[in-house]
Amino acid sequence: MHTEIICIGSELLIGSINTNGTYISEKLATIGLKVNREITVGDDFSELENVFAESFSRSNIVVATGGLGPTFDDITREAVSKATGKKLVLNKNVLETISEFFEKKKIKMPKDNEKQAYILEGAEIISNDLGTAAGQILKINGKIIILLPGPPREIRPMFENTVLPYLKKRFERGLLKIKVLHTVGLAESVVDEKIRKIVDIERKLEGNEVSFSILAKHTGVDIKIIASGTDEMLIDKTIQNLKKEFYGVLKDAIFGEDNQTLESVVGELLLKKRKTLAVAESCTGGLISHRLTNVAGSSMYFKESIVTYSDISKKLLLGVKDETLNKYGAVSGEVAQEMAEGIKKTSGTNFGISTTGIAGPKPSSTGKPVGLVFIAIASADGTKVQQFQFTGSRAEIKDKIATAALDILRISLI
Amino acid sequence: MHTEIICIGSELLIGSINTNGTYISEKLATIGLKVNREITVGDDFSELENVFAESFSRSNIVVATGGLGPTFDDITREAVSKATGKKLVLNKNVLETISEFFEKKKIKMPKDNEKQAYILEGAEIISNDLGTAAGQILKINGKIIILLPGPPREIRPMFENTVLPYLKKRFERGLLKIKVLHTVGLAESVVDEKIRKIVDIERKLEGNEVSFSILAKHTGVDIKIIASGTDEMLIDKTIQNLKKEFYGVLKDAIFGEDNQTLESVVGELLLKKRKTLAVAESCTGGLISHRLTNVAGSSMYFKESIVTYSDISKKLLLGVKDETLNKYGAVSGEVAQEMAEGIKKTSGTNFGISTTGIAGPKPSSTGKPVGLVFIAIASADGTKVQQFQFTGSRAEIKDKIATAALDILRISLI
Repeated sequence: MHTEIICIGSELLIGSINTNGTYISEKLATIGLKVNREITVGDDFSELENVFAESFSRSNIVVATGGLGPTFDDITREAVSKATGKKLVLNKNVLETISEFFEKKKIKMPKDNEKQAYILEGAEIISNDLGTAAGQILKINGKIIILLPGPPREIRPMFENTVLPYLKKRFERGLLKIKVLHTVGLAESVVDEKIRKIVDIERKLEGNEVSFSILAKHTGVDIKIIASGTDEMLIDKTIQNLKKEFYGVLKDAIFGEDNQTLESVVGELLLKKRKTLAVAESCTGGLISHRLTNVAGSSMYFKESIVTYSDISKKLLLGVKDETLNKYGAVSGEVAQEMAEGIKKTSGTNFGISTTGIAGPKPSSTGKPVGLVFIAIASADGTKVQQFQFTGSRAEIKDKIATAALDILRISLI
Repeated sequence: MHTEIICIGSELLIGSINTNGTYISEKLATIGLKVNREITVGDDFSELENVFAESFSRSNIVVATGGLGPTFDDITREAVSKATGKKLVLNKNVLETISEFFEKKKIKMPKDNEKQAYILEGAEIISNDLGTAAGQILKINGKIIILLPGPPREIRPMFENTVLPYLKKRFERGLLKIKVLHTVGLAESVVDEKIRKIVDIERKLEGNEVSFSILAKHTGVDIKIIASGTDEMLIDKTIQNLKKEFYGVLKDAIFGEDNQTLESVVGELLLKKRKTLAVAESCTGGLISHRLTNVAGSSMYFKESIVTYSDISKKLLLGVKDETLNKYGAVSGEVAQEMAEGIKKTSGTNFGISTTGIAGPKPSSTGKPVGLVFIAIASADGTKVQQFQFTGSRAEIKDKIATAALDILRISLI
């Protein structure tokens, strides 16, 4: 089984980000159809004709989007006609639907739109309630070409109401489920080494296939378990067993699954333990509290944050001592400690966390390097301070510090 | 001349949006190279080998990204080797660079990373300052294959410092320039109506072509002017003239160009006018100060932010009166005003801005609707309060409020 997606439009190669491909491949995955290739091509007739001829020769299913509009550069219909040898025929019902579309808007149908009523000989029509470009499903020798317009809002109902049921009836190959495990604090190569034994085993049980993918972001590494088959219970069991194996080797480095975020997990832990939190941020500039407050209901445990971007704010708002600033400088473990203790005291919360460091791009005036940071956490158990040296752009360093601070809090809560 | 981009990684077909293709095709366009196809393919060895063999047979230039990492599913090197018949050879210099990369971080190089030192026979190396995956440029019979890693932050310097000059020397076919104008505060349909007359004119001067694209985001609309030709002065003049036309119809709604952000523009204005700023955030939860501090050097004008996520913080830290909270509720113009005045007073800055609202997903306990927000700005001219009603998810509403607050400050500075 070979499936390809073709996205058509010169604007997709310059200037626009294409979301149709991902949308279609995720929808196809839900009925067990795996996309082998996604091809983006401009409004160039001979290139497009070649793409269709080649994809059609390789594939069982080709889904194309774009190039069904009324203008001169909409050439998908003609290119498919040339590539497959199927004639384009004027369809009176489609023409009528298009004129009605304009009538409703009290506009005379422009002559150009007539070309949208030409359908490949033998094709089924996919009606489009949101635009004038009808879709088409063409079946030749058991192979299928599906043509859809380009605008995402038009595609979605057409795909869900017509294309997906059509393909499901003919090709459903079972189910596919995805489980994502999010890790934090380990480099990609370290995660890889730890999980190597699990992912290297060929796992092909009867009608049940498993694959893995690893996605390294600058704040952590995600592991994706992709399990497909026909027996939902078996798929679920496979995922459960694999999860156990991954937790066995990665332990606390896995902070959450699927849609969980580090801040949502921290929030759940604070709620469960009935603890409250306040934050004193210097170099993270508000990012920690922004992330915490992205979680709905965070006001239950997150009380306040003070972003002190000057020495005077650190003194006045957090009670950091003059002598500490003078002796150690604003970027120091001693100042981080006083900030965390200060915010905990001011806010009356159970936890106070603080960050102070050099986000970059330039080192501090006293020569402290970019990426140097101190994170402190104050609680009933006293105050702990940790030093880190991060790398990356200013934005990445801010992200990494916020992630490290949230993770220190998470670890102290489990 | 035929150019193709290959984006490699199963995660690009399910779950992640791919931005590398657009980045590379835009960069190639600046030296007049038009991309004919962009192909996305998963981590499947035989599929990838076929894609490389086919692309290479059709193209003069193939640029591939992804699959150069150290893990089991990074198979690009091997697939290209198989497709081109070029052996993979251990390169000692690259190996040394990789070990140094780990030494700097005081980590022992994992065994897995050794595979990243294998280079296709005869290939030039593209050094990667931000990661362990070196790029490669392979030339066979005048055709070129370029291999780059997947992470966007690693690709960008590699592409700009090495790949682009390399291709420019060999293939430059004219110029293309892109100018982006960023607007804020107007709906896409409003922008579209205002600029319709400008973009509808067919502009094809001698050797000079212009096109436009519009990108609507939930915080504003971007207009892209794409001008190409062989005469740089003519291209620059065209862009200048079009810019003037767009500014003529959109006026102050255009806040910046190209890499400027609303927060960088606000920062420039504050610096220029020698004014300082402090922020009191409720519903935005730290996002405004996070955005302000994303700008390097922001400590020159941004002094502090207090995120008050509880009534008691509003009272203790900002001096909001008990009676105001009781009479009008925390989400009210009156509280926004006292917050802005409070932070301005506490911090001794020229401007204080504040936000209070319902970010959602649930309405307030007193029935105030999701998306209702009050933004206040306090300055020597007094305090102004504005009310908004936004729609969207919690994250989108936070974004929209932060954008509106920064824009109010911008407008008061121009």
